[in-house]
Amino acid sequence: MGAEVLRLLAAHPELEVGAVGAATHAGATVGELFPGLGAAYPGLRYETLEARDLAGYDVVFCALPHGESQRLVPELVGTVGHVIDLAADFRLPASVYTTWYGAAHEAPGLLADFAYGLPELFRDELRARVHVAAPGCYPTAAGLALAPALAAGAVASEGIVVDAISGVSGRGRALSGPSLYAEANENALAYGLLDHRHTGEMEHALSRVCGVDVQLLFTPHLVPMTRGILATAYARLTSSSTTATMLDAYRDFYVDEPFVRVVEEPPATKSTLGSNVAVVTIRVDDRTGTLLAIAALDNLVKGGSGQAIQAANALLGLPEATGLSVVGVAP
Amino acid sequence: MGAEVLRLLAAHPELEVGAVGAATHAGATVGELFPGLGAAYPGLRYETLEARDLAGYDVVFCALPHGESQRLVPELVGTVGHVIDLAADFRLPASVYTTWYGAAHEAPGLLADFAYGLPELFRDELRARVHVAAPGCYPTAAGLALAPALAAGAVASEGIVVDAISGVSGRGRALSGPSLYAEANENALAYGLLDHRHTGEMEHALSRVCGVDVQLLFTPHLVPMTRGILATAYARLTSSSTTATMLDAYRDFYVDEPFVRVVEEPPATKSTLGSNVAVVTIRVDDRTGTLLAIAALDNLVKGGSGQAIQAANALLGLPEATGLSVVGVAP
Amino acid sequence: MGAEVLRLLAAHPELEVGAVGAATHAGATVGELFPGLGAAYPGLRYETLEARDLAGYDVVFCALPHGESQRLVPELVGTVGHVIDLAADFRLPASVYTTWYGAAHEAPGLLADFAYGLPELFRDELRARVHVAAPGCYPTAAGLALAPALAAGAVASEGIVVDAISGVSGRGRALSGPSLYAEANENALAYGLLDHRHTGEMEHALSRVCGVDVQLLFTPHLVPMTRGILATAYARLTSSSTTATMLDAYRDFYVDEPFVRVVEEPPATKSTLGSNVAVVTIRVDDRTGTLLAIAALDNLVKGGSGQAIQAANALLGLPEATGLSVVGVAP
Amino acid sequence: MGAEVLRLLAAHPELEVGAVGAATHAGATVGELFPGLGAAYPGLRYETLEARDLAGYDVVFCALPHGESQRLVPELVGTVGHVIDLAADFRLPASVYTTWYGAAHEAPGLLADFAYGLPELFRDELRARVHVAAPGCYPTAAGLALAPALAAGAVASEGIVVDAISGVSGRGRALSGPSLYAEANENALAYGLLDHRHTGEMEHALSRVCGVDVQLLFTPHLVPMTRGILATAYARLTSSSTTATMLDAYRDFYVDEPFVRVVEEPPATKSTLGSNVAVVTIRVDDRTGTLLAIAALDNLVKGGSGQAIQAANALLGLPEATGLSVVGVAP
Repeated sequence: MGAEVLRLLAAHPELEVGAVGAATHAGATVGELFPGLGAAYPGLRYETLEARDLAGYDVVFCALPHGESQRLVPELVGTVGHVIDLAADFRLPASVYTTWYGAAHEAPGLLADFAYGLPELFRDELRARVHVAAPGCYPTAAGLALAPALAAGAVASEGIVVDAISGVSGRGRALSGPSLYAEANENALAYGLLDHRHTGEMEHALSRVCGVDVQLLFTPHLVPMTRGILATAYARLTSSSTTATMLDAYRDFYVDEPFVRVVEEPPATKSTLGSNVAVVTIRVDDRTGTLLAIAALDNLVKGGSGQAIQAANALLGLPEATGLSVVGVAP
Repeated sequence: MGAEVLRLLAAHPELEVGAVGAATHAGATVGELFPGLGAAYPGLRYETLEARDLAGYDVVFCALPHGESQRLVPELVGTVGHVIDLAADFRLPASVYTTWYGAAHEAPGLLADFAYGLPELFRDELRARVHVAAPGCYPTAAGLALAPALAAGAVASEGIVVDAISGVSGRGRALSGPSLYAEANENALAYGLLDHRHTGEMEHALSRVCGVDVQLLFTPHLVPMTRGILATAYARLTSSSTTATMLDAYRDFYVDEPFVRVVEEPPATKSTLGSNVAVVTIRVDDRTGTLLAIAALDNLVKGGSGQAIQAANALLGLPEATGLSVVGVAP
Repeated sequence: MGAEVLRLLAAHPELEVGAVGAATHAGATVGELFPGLGAAYPGLRYETLEARDLAGYDVVFCALPHGESQRLVPELVGTVGHVIDLAADFRLPASVYTTWYGAAHEAPGLLADFAYGLPELFRDELRARVHVAAPGCYPTAAGLALAPALAAGAVASEGIVVDAISGVSGRGRALSGPSLYAEANENALAYGLLDHRHTGEMEHALSRVCGVDVQLLFTPHLVPMTRGILATAYARLTSSSTTATMLDAYRDFYVDEPFVRVVEEPPATKSTLGSNVAVVTIRVDDRTGTLLAIAALDNLVKGGSGQAIQAANALLGLPEATGLSVVGVAP
Repeated sequence: MGAEVLRLLAAHPELEVGAVGAATHAGATVGELFPGLGAAYPGLRYETLEARDLAGYDVVFCALPHGESQRLVPELVGTVGHVIDLAADFRLPASVYTTWYGAAHEAPGLLADFAYGLPELFRDELRARVHVAAPGCYPTAAGLALAPALAAGAVASEGIVVDAISGVSGRGRALSGPSLYAEANENALAYGLLDHRHTGEMEHALSRVCGVDVQLLFTPHLVPMTRGILATAYARLTSSSTTATMLDAYRDFYVDEPFVRVVEEPPATKSTLGSNVAVVTIRVDDRTGTLLAIAALDNLVKGGSGQAIQAANALLGLPEATGLSVVGVAP
């Protein structure tokens, strides 16, 4: 995620990277760790950064494991302009955090300063808060797929199923068996059955969207691709409708959004690769009384670093789209 | 599918291949079209076969597009021992066929001679009929995942969701845009939204399993792998249960089956590659009152040619497992 | 190739796309054919363009099969500012063209107006000519890998081997068996043995670089990836040297080039994905008296559309790097 | 490699697995570590085996890192029938071992008891020795590609280039950055430049084949596939020849070999997946005076465990092909 922030900032006309921090890799240049970034950041080296080294920066992007952000952020707040946290630490109320992450929150007093950085659904919050908790990749996809229907009361708030497919980069760069090429290639499997932590984040965000408690069952799958998330969601229709009517409602909901495209054809993750775009479609199934809602995005961009920069742009008073591409790298 | 029958028959101790038919490729050797089969079938050539050329054969495997089987089979019946049809033509009652395939059935009088070749669920039929309609890949996976729960009345027969992932070989060898490497690689997408034809086959087979009409919503997805199907199904529990209890019920259901493995960990398609094994697990989700059932298999083997040979073995009075491997090629 | 020109031009600050032509797909929007480009070109439709429709354009990019460009270009010359041809038609003298492409050239009188658009090796030509023949993907990789050594006389001009690996996108979008996912995945094979047409282009270009006739044997390989070319070349050293000395010579040769990076580690295609960068390294093997030279690049960018835009920039008097990224999309 | 021995032995009619050893994974069942093997080896557990636990076994397959075999083997010799070592420890004379592996050999006295297990080239040795050193994957491919030409004196013994492509499984199961899916996918790169250890093994084996010292430059490449090696070799012809003549000579050389197929079309790794077959072709290039020789095989089977079993069969007096498949799993 940190490397992807760097990749995107290389094309950002208003933000300049001043320093990059790392723990085990301190001392290496960016280009040594990420050869594709070498030409954009010649000579830039990872440092063992402490909070005081960052004082005065306009924006600090934190791409730390959950649990670590809430230790660092209290030291940053007040000394830097804005913190954009890519971990789960500031996305949920303290009690919900404890339920899904199994630990007490260490900085609950700061939660009120953080906006949930999904601009299409919570833009008001970005205007009112100082810092940003960038959403998880799966909650972004599921949220954009389901929000218009839930907000309109068109579907029931319980009995929802979210079935999602993710590329392997969602697992990060840590060395582990399932992340090995020879294990992941030619393989599809579900994981995190029943209790994946993004379930809580999806329910919390969507409950805020529709004003009633949302309950859903979420099953993520790992498939042999590097980037991309496809979320396929199922919700019970509360009244009769048609695909055409509902597609129009979705188009209206996202009419001014540069980064959400409502389409008729099934969205493909490939069309979003490298871009900050989420592609959404829906179908109304009369036969079973179900709304089928699908969203595709690049888990590292709109599902991560790109959306974080989009939120940072908002905090900084820049046009949200500044420095972010709507063009996918395909094939 | 035809080539996969040949691959598997090369290891079958009781069946010998006498002739292979093809339309556009007649004249080519098996090894020219499928180099990996060249050493097993030196000199064997595809011919333009007509029904009369096949008279007297013990078994004929038909791997034709749907619609074509029902034209050929009437000529074969009576002149060959058993027809094993890999198309959809003899899987459904004529009226259900017409609903999902949009055409009248041309040989409805022969349907009663065909067993639905999913031995684990319809073994009795294999003992009573002469020919076999080998099931579709998705219905095999969904059927094996859901049958034990439906048969026991543990889940409701409507409101079921089947969300499945397939490798690209499921599309066959025809030239088409989505089958191109540069289109399919690094891409995940849903297709056949709401009305994929396997929906009808799943509903019909599972209705027979539980004795009441089953209704489900099926969404297949294409991901960048060659082989493998993973079906993830969701059904509403009719009473409180636990994962342990339900896993035991599934183990009991499949206790004597050499080709179905009930496991605790999420099944991975990779472990089934090249084998005739389906791997199944379930979870009981108290929170949402849902049974999550997952099955993995190789779409070309247990989801196709392997299962067809398993059914042929049964018709021929051979042990069902004859010539079929339970060992996956991994990594 | 045409779609990749559009992808790159979407980020180009000085060029605006006025019209796009297609034969079979005329009438479709860009976004229908290439969903990832839909957001960048809303409403832009492919048209059946004829030469007269293009009169007055500053630049026309032609991405036609070889043979077709030489029929269209004579009609364009004089009516448009610059033609950037991505086919092989204007890369070679007429006689060499005939040798490798097996047909007489139909517009030999125009060849002198075309620069060979490999700016790092033939920049002078870009200043002297009106139009550009963009080089092939393999010749770009092999050319950049071998040129510094050949130009310095450090290696013999015959006995050279160029062994290259390419992603499947190099085959274009045409439907063909080897381009199918199920054929190309988990497969590596050589093709075009002894007589791949890029052999002639490599020999011609490198002969011009070193002033003597270069002879080489070129073997391309197809591997399961979408983008990327890795060329591994072997040439006989003419005198004793060291890796360090030769690396310095390569760094000097490319010192002012924004799009060629000379590195010590073996270049990986992944670091170049989506960017216009070629990464080069060499090794001097004392034991066998061989120079090993390796180049990695994105076949659709630096090996195709990106380099074409780089050359167009030069013709238009813009900085060569305008609108072209040096950042690879990884992972 | 050990798991692949188990996969293949599951289909071997004459060998039964008695015990399996592991260091870190002792206690786990085979099916827990390798789900695809679970059905074939129900209940079989990895143990912390010491040499004395193996006394009396007919055959012991050792799949240890190089250096470890030479410590274990002295304890096994005399107490078990045959040792089949899959490491590099007993492939080379002690001095050559030291040159390429940088350490003194710890059991040089046992080297004379080991045959180099490449039956097609060194079958006599299998009849004369007690144990087997199974060859490396690259040396098997390069050896089979070049041996007929070198043995016939048709090509020079120096100036040879071997350029090879390998799937990621060649790196084994150890956790490392380049083995990660997100690093290896969509990536091609060379490694082991100039000094890969298999260079010494190739030179040693081929020198024995032709009776004079062979010198070659070997460059392996990693590409995004799991299995498969494709070796493309270049050697200088010593006299004029034709492709047809040389293909005949190759066919003659391998005429009685069930596991080497000489073909006209470029061999594809995919056709060999899972099988013990190597596919070979050659081309004579008059233009440059070069023999181009290509071999494809499955690095884990003919390049590893399959060939090891083939050699074990020979030692045990069984037909060499016992239990080994010639059928590739494709697609």
